[in-house]
Amino acid sequence: MGEAMKMQAIPGGAMTRRQLLAKIGMAAGGAVMYQAMSSLGMAAESNHRDPFRLEGEAKGASVLVLGAGLAGLTAAYELRKAGYKVQVLEYNARPGGRNWTLRGGDRYTELGGATQECGFDEGHYLNPGPWRIPHHHRAVLGYCKQFGVALEAFNQVNYNALLHGQHAFGGKPQRFRDIDADYKGHVSELLAKCTQQRALDQLVSRQDQELLLESLRNWGALDRDFGYVKGRASSERRGFARYPGGGLSGAPEFSEPFSVQDVLRSRLWTTLAAGNNYEMQTTMFQPVGGMDQIGKAFARQLPDAIRYNAKVTRIEQDERGVRAAWVDAERGGEEQVASADWCVCTIPLSVLSRIPMTVGEPMANAIAAVPYAASVKVGLQFKRRFWEEDEAIYGGISYTDLPITLISYPSTGYHSPGKGVLLGAYVWGLEAFELTSMKPEERVRKAVEYGTQLHPQYPREFDNGIAVGWHRVPFTHGCFGMWSEQARAEHYQNLCRIDGRIALAGEHVSYIPAWQEGAILSAHDVIGRLHRKAMATGGRA
Amino acid sequence: MGEAMKMQAIPGGAMTRRQLLAKIGMAAGGAVMYQAMSSLGMAAESNHRDPFRLEGEAKGASVLVLGAGLAGLTAAYELRKAGYKVQVLEYNARPGGRNWTLRGGDRYTELGGATQECGFDEGHYLNPGPWRIPHHHRAVLGYCKQFGVALEAFNQVNYNALLHGQHAFGGKPQRFRDIDADYKGHVSELLAKCTQQRALDQLVSRQDQELLLESLRNWGALDRDFGYVKGRASSERRGFARYPGGGLSGAPEFSEPFSVQDVLRSRLWTTLAAGNNYEMQTTMFQPVGGMDQIGKAFARQLPDAIRYNAKVTRIEQDERGVRAAWVDAERGGEEQVASADWCVCTIPLSVLSRIPMTVGEPMANAIAAVPYAASVKVGLQFKRRFWEEDEAIYGGISYTDLPITLISYPSTGYHSPGKGVLLGAYVWGLEAFELTSMKPEERVRKAVEYGTQLHPQYPREFDNGIAVGWHRVPFTHGCFGMWSEQARAEHYQNLCRIDGRIALAGEHVSYIPAWQEGAILSAHDVIGRLHRKAMATGGRA
Repeated sequence: MGEAMKMQAIPGGAMTRRQLLAKIGMAAGGAVMYQAMSSLGMAAESNHRDPFRLEGEAKGASVLVLGAGLAGLTAAYELRKAGYKVQVLEYNARPGGRNWTLRGGDRYTELGGATQECGFDEGHYLNPGPWRIPHHHRAVLGYCKQFGVALEAFNQVNYNALLHGQHAFGGKPQRFRDIDADYKGHVSELLAKCTQQRALDQLVSRQDQELLLESLRNWGALDRDFGYVKGRASSERRGFARYPGGGLSGAPEFSEPFSVQDVLRSRLWTTLAAGNNYEMQTTMFQPVGGMDQIGKAFARQLPDAIRYNAKVTRIEQDERGVRAAWVDAERGGEEQVASADWCVCTIPLSVLSRIPMTVGEPMANAIAAVPYAASVKVGLQFKRRFWEEDEAIYGGISYTDLPITLISYPSTGYHSPGKGVLLGAYVWGLEAFELTSMKPEERVRKAVEYGTQLHPQYPREFDNGIAVGWHRVPFTHGCFGMWSEQARAEHYQNLCRIDGRIALAGEHVSYIPAWQEGAILSAHDVIGRLHRKAMATGGRA
Repeated sequence: MGEAMKMQAIPGGAMTRRQLLAKIGMAAGGAVMYQAMSSLGMAAESNHRDPFRLEGEAKGASVLVLGAGLAGLTAAYELRKAGYKVQVLEYNARPGGRNWTLRGGDRYTELGGATQECGFDEGHYLNPGPWRIPHHHRAVLGYCKQFGVALEAFNQVNYNALLHGQHAFGGKPQRFRDIDADYKGHVSELLAKCTQQRALDQLVSRQDQELLLESLRNWGALDRDFGYVKGRASSERRGFARYPGGGLSGAPEFSEPFSVQDVLRSRLWTTLAAGNNYEMQTTMFQPVGGMDQIGKAFARQLPDAIRYNAKVTRIEQDERGVRAAWVDAERGGEEQVASADWCVCTIPLSVLSRIPMTVGEPMANAIAAVPYAASVKVGLQFKRRFWEEDEAIYGGISYTDLPITLISYPSTGYHSPGKGVLLGAYVWGLEAFELTSMKPEERVRKAVEYGTQLHPQYPREFDNGIAVGWHRVPFTHGCFGMWSEQARAEHYQNLCRIDGRIALAGEHVSYIPAWQEGAILSAHDVIGRLHRKAMATGGRA
């Protein structure tokens, strides 16, 4: 199917594509249809305003949804639209789960008891979880469009941002522009030389070698002799030593490229391709005002359906239905029980593995099999947007081999006066565990200390900060489900399969771990199957 | 100086940079100081809120500014701030010149008499002239910040936009993502093979060859054996045949890269580097609501200083002052005369060369020496934003070898319902002359006809269009001054040098032709010199 679709996935075959989709839809039901449409890049086409739809009647059946993250919200929204009675239990006092935004005045207490109060000024925020949306995440974007969540461009690659290595260029940060241009230039020059020395004769025809040389000159900014050297061509990529200006004072001066040796040994090339990954390719988006606008928009569609502050303690099922026991997440107290015909459980496996649940061994083993990734984000507020004012860095990401990994500048409010908030650290793996083990204020202090190596303005301009270590987040105990190849082969299908009346959804039940799109598409997939099962059994118990 | 600056142009040397700037400022005056600051990327630093400033007193001298484009507006604004009496004569009924936006209801009559009325819906527009601002154009951006002109990101490179060649892949458009990934992948594989075959031994040390191989694998998405092949690595760049999804239906399928021969022979690589040019590198901007927000903002700073509809017919000077004769540009009638001690003339050379002016032979020859580029832009309104809805193309540019050259999608109002306007053609050179020679409605028809090869939705969704051929624009007779190397060597200095009481400014008096930054920096440069001359002569005649 994939190949056939690929052949169709170009303009010109619109009618054919639609016919194909109709066939897929008839054969496979809504969820697969949506998936197929995503593959074709058509999912949001105007005549598919609401691309996901469960066909057939719910016949009064009820569904208990555990978790009001994007998977749970999607399931609740779509099931309700199809006629199900839906109740959602949510641990937090807000919708969204990891779809979460911290603003000035927000209080956040992590596992271990440390409480931070966010000190950001009005209008500034940190998205501790997801913070960007690829243009091909059609399900997330479809709901944004449907619910009127305003979007703005998220700037991933910024040629004027910095690449920093502690042992590269004496520790001095370089502009992305310079390293990118010089790497491409040297690669092109080397390949051009190999071509001229006939090293490609066994690989590429003579005719194509001529095209290759022409393309390398263009693409690598080589001179007439296929050299990557100081001159107009290279300066028009890496920038000038003295930029062109006006009048008598405007004559430009070319800049001197770094040598191939310096570029290679700097290892700054390791992050050059970050924006070439299909998940980071332009165009990317962020909701205006914070990622939680999506969760809030879903919640507005579900009046009275969500019970907040409900901590699930037990999940039981039998042939008649499903029951979830819960207590007040803040005050504890008496256990209460919610029940329904069916259950869609979106609780992260890291938490779910500690909740008693009557499911068979295959699903129970799958739930226990997936470790959760460590991750830390630190938001830093500064007294002014010095990155814009001093350095002309507007949005985008600087990378470093320091334990903060990166600094990301806000892709919004360009040129606005007053304070500014940037992402001062976004860390995974071992360094995330180290940071998580620190007190929050220590994480912030570290982010400022390391960031000073990229931006000497840090100490003078720092105002306040907030740090979220995902292994201490009470509602997830980790960032996202880390599937190894082996775990996926052994357990993924068992995690997906509906166990009696209980079905699982969430990014952990998808091939797009850590992304909101995975959560939503997992919900689409599972409620499609649940719905067919419910219809087959007459809906209710 | 260039090299010294480059060394300082990294964070860490803030104090040193400031000391350097102070020295430059003392030695060379404001304009050079600004230029130096631009080179350092510091021009908008908060302690230089208004980086350009003329030092010293105007002593009551007056300046006549001809043309209210960005060069004239800048000169008028800065000279007035320095105490000069300033009068501006402007041919059009609006400020901005080529800083120009067409909206629904606007009427535009070109040379030859054809009149178009723009039929765009409310909120949509075409910028016939400049349409994007690089982040390093610090002078333009500085005024935007100073005057509160809101900016949003302009999306130049879109991995999901199209590359189209009439003879490439049977005329079927390809995604930028596929060609970009495959070109880099094949280049990387070929260079890796050369390296392994020891073809680089004379060029790169063995140690660096290991680094090169490692970098190529990362950067080119090669597999373990340094092959660019169908698999996870390549699909994570070029996209999947079937994208990863959720639940049981979410398993991805890898896509098949194009062969090196197909990629090279397609010639679609010719536009891959467009976004790597330092003038097109992220972050780019556009003013919210249209480029003319900048001209309007300048004009608001100059109440009563600008006389609109004033067509200059003669420019004379003697030892006592400058006089410009003008007539009403719409109604003609009686010639009137404006006079002042000095004149800054920003009229494009294409027009100025036909206006009698008392200047010496060197400047007169320079004025006659610069031909103006041909360019055409066509704005097309469609009934819906099908590029977003059907194809997930948000902003950015598709390229083609058809005579329209490119299609650019709006970088604003993403997901907005209703109609949408895109740039349906942006053409230079011979094809621009051909299009300009047609009637406006014919240009629009051609743009729709050609664009249909990229987007089959065109004929069904087309609503209306407007076309600007710059050689028929009454106030410029062309798009921008095209300096050959030879013309610049022979005439540029003579164009810059103040002739008696007359000084020239505009993009044509800069090393940044066609860009607004060139116009502004040329004004900064020349009014700095004019001011010194005025002070030296006691200001007035």
